Amino acid sequence: MTQIIEIGKRAKKASQTLMCAGTMEKNRALSSIAQALRREKAAILAENAADIVAAKERGMSPSMVDRLTLTESRIEDIAAAVEKIVDLEDPVGVIETGFVRPNGLQVRKTRVPMGVVGIIFEARPNVTVDGAALCLKTGNAVILRGGKEAIRSNTALAGVMRDAIESTGLPADSVILIEDTSRESATALMKLNDYLDVLIPRGGAGLIRAVVEQATVPVIETGTGNCHIYIDKSADVQMGANIIFNAKTSRPSVCNAAETLLVHRDIAQEFLPVAKVLLDTKHVELRGDENTRSILGPSVKPVTEEDYATEFLDYILAVRVVDSLEEAIDHVRSYSSGHSECIVTRDLGCAQRFVDTVDSAAVYVNASTRFTDGGEFGFGAEIGISTQKLHARGPMGLKELTTVKYIIYGDGQVR
Amino acid sequence: MTQIIEIGKRAKKASQTLMCAGTMEKNRALSSIAQALRREKAAILAENAADIVAAKERGMSPSMVDRLTLTESRIEDIAAAVEKIVDLEDPVGVIETGFVRPNGLQVRKTRVPMGVVGIIFEARPNVTVDGAALCLKTGNAVILRGGKEAIRSNTALAGVMRDAIESTGLPADSVILIEDTSRESATALMKLNDYLDVLIPRGGAGLIRAVVEQATVPVIETGTGNCHIYIDKSADVQMGANIIFNAKTSRPSVCNAAETLLVHRDIAQEFLPVAKVLLDTKHVELRGDENTRSILGPSVKPVTEEDYATEFLDYILAVRVVDSLEEAIDHVRSYSSGHSECIVTRDLGCAQRFVDTVDSAAVYVNASTRFTDGGEFGFGAEIGISTQKLHARGPMGLKELTTVKYIIYGDGQVR
Repeated sequence: MTQIIEIGKRAKKASQTLMCAGTMEKNRALSSIAQALRREKAAILAENAADIVAAKERGMSPSMVDRLTLTESRIEDIAAAVEKIVDLEDPVGVIETGFVRPNGLQVRKTRVPMGVVGIIFEARPNVTVDGAALCLKTGNAVILRGGKEAIRSNTALAGVMRDAIESTGLPADSVILIEDTSRESATALMKLNDYLDVLIPRGGAGLIRAVVEQATVPVIETGTGNCHIYIDKSADVQMGANIIFNAKTSRPSVCNAAETLLVHRDIAQEFLPVAKVLLDTKHVELRGDENTRSILGPSVKPVTEEDYATEFLDYILAVRVVDSLEEAIDHVRSYSSGHSECIVTRDLGCAQRFVDTVDSAAVYVNASTRFTDGGEFGFGAEIGISTQKLHARGPMGLKELTTVKYIIYGDGQVR
Repeated sequence: MTQIIEIGKRAKKASQTLMCAGTMEKNRALSSIAQALRREKAAILAENAADIVAAKERGMSPSMVDRLTLTESRIEDIAAAVEKIVDLEDPVGVIETGFVRPNGLQVRKTRVPMGVVGIIFEARPNVTVDGAALCLKTGNAVILRGGKEAIRSNTALAGVMRDAIESTGLPADSVILIEDTSRESATALMKLNDYLDVLIPRGGAGLIRAVVEQATVPVIETGTGNCHIYIDKSADVQMGANIIFNAKTSRPSVCNAAETLLVHRDIAQEFLPVAKVLLDTKHVELRGDENTRSILGPSVKPVTEEDYATEFLDYILAVRVVDSLEEAIDHVRSYSSGHSECIVTRDLGCAQRFVDTVDSAAVYVNASTRFTDGGEFGFGAEIGISTQKLHARGPMGLKELTTVKYIIYGDGQVR
């Protein structure tokens, strides 16, 4: 698509200016964005209201409408989040390692911007600002492709940001929104190898799968979390119950929420009723294997193979009694999406075996999986949680939006 | 393809054992491989001879036959290279960062193996052993898919390695060669998302392009090097001539060799004749723009747009006179493959501007681009040179074959 290639060229050009922009310049642009969002909130809310009317007419679900909705206080939150990014340390320019070779070459592995970052997302207008701000801070130009349901909101937000950036002297094309929300524009972005350095999908499993399958540009896979809590036979029962209750119910719709509870058979009789009392307070639907149902009774629905593989994102929990730690590890290996898992145990050997052999981005001993989050890890901001192993794994902060280059000073060395 | 899926399953299973193998165990397996290669060299050479006969019958070019050929001394070199990998530091288990959060959570970002690495390559049997040894050292299982021209050599080498690994107690499936050299087997490997954590193509531009276009698994793009040497107006003429001579002629067939010479107009009259005297000693064919030809005469062929974009990998050099540093930078931005570039200058500001704005994996001031190499950078070994920005950039050592996981210890923390 010529139009997307043109956007790629513009973004590449802007990225060449941003690459050399100092932290102060970038921070000035970020502050300008925050101010402009507050100043223009009436106009933004008007466009958002039009999106919401259209969405309701198309029969969008209430939870999706909620994600799409902006309010004065949400715009304030978004602006405040941009200001928080101003305060974060700029990873660009950091020398990761530097050394002198025996022949006198001075080698410096230096952190630099990626160049042009693409973000494909759904109907969440906050991602428009958040993604743009994180890219700007790290000296990257960004191409945004949001869902059609939020197109008027996104166009307003992108316009406000572009003007704000330009008013501080950096290129407006640092942030470009693709206004064509057709499937073709998304596909063209996924194949924009000449101009795009990385593409990050932010959204549901379907979007991420489509990007992984179709993209020829480098992709960072984010998000899907089929997380497990394993209660070892030596577990503190009350701690285990608190952890599964928190991991399942504190925010079921997010990727670090637990979806399956595994319980060692030696503790199942004692543990499961305690956990159920807590989970019942939030009306969590339990789907259990035979052993679980023989302990908790027929109010627990029978679990299916498919349940084990499902990220419910809801008040539903699969439960299975296992014969051993190894069986728990095998279950996790078979069904996990590689996001976050937890063992609750008092046994040092079991804890070590679990963290050594479970191959997920975050592996917990005696803590809720809900902590897998850039904010909770102290990164200040996150662009997503990577479930792949290349480049970034787990919560991605500013550093993960950069790459390195080797700068080598010599005085005439040849080989 | 069922067969490739089966191979993926076997490799995944082996990787789960390798993931927990200690450095001593992995080193024992590597030493065993080196010994076995020496012991079995007669059998390996016999299979290689059969490959060579077949290749010559198919009319393979002499330089390709040379790359395919093993000799006693080349097998010794390969075995010695494996032993060098024993001596390298194992990146697995290193804690990259570790901190305690205010709530007491102990977070450790720990280096771990990737899991299963795929390597697609052409008719170079040394890659079979080199790739396998680097993966083994870093605790990864490897699936190798070499070219059909080397299939008998590769089968022999893989068999020797598998037996050697198994004899030390690690799984033979740590190394699996795909013996089916059809296009379908390569395509199936590129889409083996359930079992393959990363795919590394090692070979020519055509192979790399095919992998980038078709793969749905994460890929590390390696290799293509359209490298530039820019002679600034303040350059030391003799230093500049030595650098372009070295960068072009010391080994023209490799990716870090220079392909285009850019010369500032203020120094062109003085510099070009000096450089030509040196380049003529190796019969380098010059293809120049009008200014170059007016200085060096009509023996210099006219350069084309396509020449600027070509990685010659031969004794051919494109030459262009530029009006300014900015024009040189623009030329590099337009044609570079992002591998290695060099400025020869005595001017600090020009050096800084060049390294800040040229967006390649390695940017040199006053040194030959031929130094972009794992060995020359002191990494001991390299699996390739990445020209992408994701995960790894420039020479990739052992560390780039690993990823990280967050291990978090708590005592009941919930969110």
